[in-house]
Amino acid sequence: MYKPSPRHILMTSTILAFAVASPSNAVEGMFTPDQLPEIAKDLRAKGLKMKPNQISDLTGFPMGAVVSLGGCTASFVSPQGLVVTNHHCAYGSIQYNSTEAQNYLEDGFLAENLEAELPAAPGSRIYVTVDLTDVTNKVTGALSEDLSGEARFAAIDSNRKSLVSDCEADEGHRCRVASFYGGLQYKLIKQLEIKDVRLTYAPAGPIGKYGGDIDNWQWPRHTGDFAFYRAYVSPDGKSADYSEDNVPFSPEHHLKVSAGGLDDEDFVMVAGYPGSTSRYTRLAEVKNTFDWQYPTWQTLLDNWIGAINKASEPGSDARIKYESRLAGLNNFNKNLGGQIEGARRVGLVDRRAQREAALNDWIASKAPNAGYAEAIEKLDALSAETATAARSSYWYNNATRPQLLGTAQRLYRLSHERQKPDAERESGYQERDMDRMKQGLTAMDRRYDPSVDKAEWMVFLKGYLEQPASERVKALDTALGLRDGMSDAALSAKLDSYYSGSDLDKLETRLSLMEATPASLEAKSDPFMRLAVALYDHERAMEAESKDRAGRRAALQPKYMEAIIAWQKDQGFTAYPDANSTLRVTYGNVLGGSPKDGMRYDPFTTLQGITEKDTGEDPFNSPQSQLDLIQAKDYGRYALGSINSVPVNFLTDLDSTGGNSGSATLNARGELVGLLFDGTIESVNSDWDFDPRTTRSIHVDSRYMLWVMEKVDKADHLLKEMHIVNARGRAVK
Amino acid sequence: MYKPSPRHILMTSTILAFAVASPSNAVEGMFTPDQLPEIAKDLRAKGLKMKPNQISDLTGFPMGAVVSLGGCTASFVSPQGLVVTNHHCAYGSIQYNSTEAQNYLEDGFLAENLEAELPAAPGSRIYVTVDLTDVTNKVTGALSEDLSGEARFAAIDSNRKSLVSDCEADEGHRCRVASFYGGLQYKLIKQLEIKDVRLTYAPAGPIGKYGGDIDNWQWPRHTGDFAFYRAYVSPDGKSADYSEDNVPFSPEHHLKVSAGGLDDEDFVMVAGYPGSTSRYTRLAEVKNTFDWQYPTWQTLLDNWIGAINKASEPGSDARIKYESRLAGLNNFNKNLGGQIEGARRVGLVDRRAQREAALNDWIASKAPNAGYAEAIEKLDALSAETATAARSSYWYNNATRPQLLGTAQRLYRLSHERQKPDAERESGYQERDMDRMKQGLTAMDRRYDPSVDKAEWMVFLKGYLEQPASERVKALDTALGLRDGMSDAALSAKLDSYYSGSDLDKLETRLSLMEATPASLEAKSDPFMRLAVALYDHERAMEAESKDRAGRRAALQPKYMEAIIAWQKDQGFTAYPDANSTLRVTYGNVLGGSPKDGMRYDPFTTLQGITEKDTGEDPFNSPQSQLDLIQAKDYGRYALGSINSVPVNFLTDLDSTGGNSGSATLNARGELVGLLFDGTIESVNSDWDFDPRTTRSIHVDSRYMLWVMEKVDKADHLLKEMHIVNARGRAVK
Repeated sequence: MYKPSPRHILMTSTILAFAVASPSNAVEGMFTPDQLPEIAKDLRAKGLKMKPNQISDLTGFPMGAVVSLGGCTASFVSPQGLVVTNHHCAYGSIQYNSTEAQNYLEDGFLAENLEAELPAAPGSRIYVTVDLTDVTNKVTGALSEDLSGEARFAAIDSNRKSLVSDCEADEGHRCRVASFYGGLQYKLIKQLEIKDVRLTYAPAGPIGKYGGDIDNWQWPRHTGDFAFYRAYVSPDGKSADYSEDNVPFSPEHHLKVSAGGLDDEDFVMVAGYPGSTSRYTRLAEVKNTFDWQYPTWQTLLDNWIGAINKASEPGSDARIKYESRLAGLNNFNKNLGGQIEGARRVGLVDRRAQREAALNDWIASKAPNAGYAEAIEKLDALSAETATAARSSYWYNNATRPQLLGTAQRLYRLSHERQKPDAERESGYQERDMDRMKQGLTAMDRRYDPSVDKAEWMVFLKGYLEQPASERVKALDTALGLRDGMSDAALSAKLDSYYSGSDLDKLETRLSLMEATPASLEAKSDPFMRLAVALYDHERAMEAESKDRAGRRAALQPKYMEAIIAWQKDQGFTAYPDANSTLRVTYGNVLGGSPKDGMRYDPFTTLQGITEKDTGEDPFNSPQSQLDLIQAKDYGRYALGSINSVPVNFLTDLDSTGGNSGSATLNARGELVGLLFDGTIESVNSDWDFDPRTTRSIHVDSRYMLWVMEKVDKADHLLKEMHIVNARGRAVK
Repeated sequence: MYKPSPRHILMTSTILAFAVASPSNAVEGMFTPDQLPEIAKDLRAKGLKMKPNQISDLTGFPMGAVVSLGGCTASFVSPQGLVVTNHHCAYGSIQYNSTEAQNYLEDGFLAENLEAELPAAPGSRIYVTVDLTDVTNKVTGALSEDLSGEARFAAIDSNRKSLVSDCEADEGHRCRVASFYGGLQYKLIKQLEIKDVRLTYAPAGPIGKYGGDIDNWQWPRHTGDFAFYRAYVSPDGKSADYSEDNVPFSPEHHLKVSAGGLDDEDFVMVAGYPGSTSRYTRLAEVKNTFDWQYPTWQTLLDNWIGAINKASEPGSDARIKYESRLAGLNNFNKNLGGQIEGARRVGLVDRRAQREAALNDWIASKAPNAGYAEAIEKLDALSAETATAARSSYWYNNATRPQLLGTAQRLYRLSHERQKPDAERESGYQERDMDRMKQGLTAMDRRYDPSVDKAEWMVFLKGYLEQPASERVKALDTALGLRDGMSDAALSAKLDSYYSGSDLDKLETRLSLMEATPASLEAKSDPFMRLAVALYDHERAMEAESKDRAGRRAALQPKYMEAIIAWQKDQGFTAYPDANSTLRVTYGNVLGGSPKDGMRYDPFTTLQGITEKDTGEDPFNSPQSQLDLIQAKDYGRYALGSINSVPVNFLTDLDSTGGNSGSATLNARGELVGLLFDGTIESVNSDWDFDPRTTRSIHVDSRYMLWVMEKVDKADHLLKEMHIVNARGRAVK
């Protein structure tokens, strides 16, 4: 399924996401809201009944109702701060509040009133966008053309930090300078950071997670992937940590929820925070990714998953700590398989080569003197260099992945960064990041087991050791005594000494070291800390190289994207920036599809499909009360005539990716008709190259949500709190 | 995929196939040709353009062109004895003729002329039905009502053997007395046995087996599952062993082959030899099958497959010998999964209970005095007894499954049977069976490896040993020294002594022992033979019990089927007998389907689907020449307008099962429009309970066959030899 995007480390650690535009298709495109007037004609042709200008206003209706959870998307659906998102986006909070005696993951949770609402998991946030400003000029306007890569990176980084710092002077807000079109444009986004988030309602797991891993990325789907939070602020309306005195937040806007819903081919749009796409990536990196990196990942993932399974008995404490990682790795593995298969199906490499050739032709004939060709040539050399660097650091990066080593490295880095003024510190090590770092160091207790960590490290080091010495890192080889032909037993004994000699598995140690100086850490005998110290110079050198490449890219990529935009415009298309976890609008229609020759997807699934799938065993163990209601055809007001049932999930042809999870799906009048929660497995390669034939997003239907709330869970007070409308947009009593 | 049916031992060894009728659905029904006039109205309504009477004539056109291969179905398609069937039905013959240097399995085979045709695999036969007579009276007419089960079985068996023996006095023919409706009806079927069968043409494996195990039982499908044999007879037209002097057989009838083909919803009928169905099985046995037997099989199959894989390295001689068994076990396992899932989906057990209750109600109100109720009551007691017997012999039967033990048992049995006059010998041990037995003993060399045989035996014996002593067989426990809590090592050492001490792995030993006397075998020191001797009395006792049950069933089942037929007739339906490897006609329409909520199957797949699936790697490695033709859209005369391509495979809603493989698919005029070769995984449970919503048969389209022959393989002389017609039935030049 779509995973929260900024934390999608596996992906982003090694793939530099930048930019492509195939001729912008009717449904392709993750547009920034300010682009909507440009594509107004197509929006209206598809069925939009609102003025595109209205959707462009980020703080107006309906965009003002759409919020970020930091990885997922959500929306306000009542004047009392009620927020709807996916069940899988609220999963951590449901789990956090569950005990053996009160298993909300299994049974669901419904707060009878405000007092009964439960605090969300530590670190849960709701971000409400309050301002968005173009700051391109402030970020890159004063930069000389002949800066070195390193200097350019530093200048841009410093400008961004300073803008963020100024913006966050307004307490209770979180700010970010986001880069669009690979640095052609920068926008400062200011968000109210709501820190008191509470769990209001989640259906039973066998509804909210129906189909589980088996149905993940699959259609037909029957998942009630929705849950409700409530945002709380201090009595004077400011962001505040959890307190009994806090009151529900009053959003400026909230969405109406449709009990009328959609039918086949109806217009839909989705407002959300897609995480990352690679539609403009140059050929060298596409090839490197699909020819080498993804297959290498697949092999590693198989070994990695195998090692975790072997090192932890099902049901053991150790396994429970790693369930979430296992689910993530399996999800990633399935996604990779889908991407590789999709790339083969569409002929991604050939298509990318053709597109680059077409762009070159256009430049040669239409814009020979704009400097595009030169920039692209240099960009391609840089892309090749980046691909080479990604390969050469791949195994080292894995070899340093174990949690205790990573912790030691973060703490030692922090001790260095704390010597600097805050504004000069590396991102992630500034004062504004300390809460999050502390949460991370704390949460480790719930997801660390030494035997499993060691088993993982064995897998990574064995892969690393298979590389020629020239591709390995001397500091690591020396510190760990690694040598060619080293036996597994010798390696294993070595690692044992690390785990037995370390204190970093103790929470108080980790937290206390947040205040340490470099010298005090260098004096420690903890083997992981000694290793972190030994690797420090190499890591900084790698980072400097990476920043230098990023700085050089910052000088080239904007030119390339300028060429893309001009080329697309010349053909009558509107180019859009790659996803970057900022608010985007995508649109299209309810539509089944043909994922492969000889087969079709219907646009809707039905309640009967639940009964049909139900085996009584997880993940197909619908509550009996729900099965009885289905059997009785007790549809209430939620049936769709064309399918003669209550629609459960539906497909659309709009453009989405990880981070879109929980996004409001809106009809032509901007009413909530569902929540986006996944894409089909045939769609996942659209992150690289949008395939209009097979790409389909999966949504849970608002009628199913309301039906479950009314009939199964009797959440009458929440239904009353929301503004529910019928098919003509009229209020429903 | 559908496997040849009479050799489907795994299934038939433990499932007594007898009889159900849900209200006969438009597409349900495997009718004997003589029933067609009865259902003429529905046939015409569905679209048949011929007179039903014409199809009833087994030796007329078109039925006279349909032949059996003994497990698969085939058809004559030229006056020179050219026969078309599935690639997977001719697979053994293609494999038999393949060498590393000339790999016809991979590259395909096309005989440029008659001289170049290759002998089919030993034992290959073509059976042409020449006569069919109702012999019920001769089989059961003179039997007294109060015979014991054993006596009834013996009398029926003796009558059947005597009819067969008389019939086979006409040299070159093979005869069989088939039982219909569980013994309500017996028919003597006389077939010309063509023994000189030659391989004429098979497309490349990557066409004929496209999709392999991955696509097995699946739609969408793109398999060119067709191949051609030629029947040869002596110059005077008689059945004869292979000889250079033999000449092509001139069949009385052959099918025209359609280059025009079908479109969505067109009428189709299939004439073939379906193997076995269980539509009238009583509840006790249905429950036993789905609650106990199938799940038990699944566990055993997983262990069994695992043991073969572990005992034989991929690519090794041992593995090559077991590839076919592995494929069969995997196929069976996938089929079982589909059956269990299908039974859950339709609620098989509840439906069967309801149907039995409905029949009881009908009997009580409409035929209280026909003796039905009493017969059914006794039948149910017998069914429960049979289910219990099946359970209790299950593990013993597995424990005696190893090839060397089975061989020893067959040879020792033969030595006893040979003491009797031929007519009194057990079926399978008569003179008419000796050729086949010799072939079996010979073929063992190609599918036996001692380490794998032992690994399999370990699996079986461990399962057997887990049963309580009361469920085990003393003779086996004693002979093998089996005891509770026996260690694997002890068991393994015991079995090693069997393999090291046996000569039965030598072909000459096996063949020479076909002439042995019981005494000479009893004197042997070969451990497998000693074990066979030790188990003999127990096996005969089990057999006697089984025959007694069969005899008692023979007194009850006809009455039950009489009730079913009357009940169905009373509701306006025509009941049909369970499949029994005799010629049946089923009919329906070209039709996509909805295998599950939210998904649809299209009725046709296209050439483009091949390109879409093609990875270049087995089993998706279409020949480049084919991919080029597809790319060039070189469709010749074979395109179907509604899909804008050449149709590759298609779906119909007609009723089929294993044994139907290779069956001619005929259009409304009786022209060959395809070959049936599989059912979808959602269909396999229809062997128990026909589900009109999900049941779909899969056919290879005649247009794809002809397109491959013309464009890919340039088989012009075969195209010329066949009678090819266009969409209006006119000859195509």
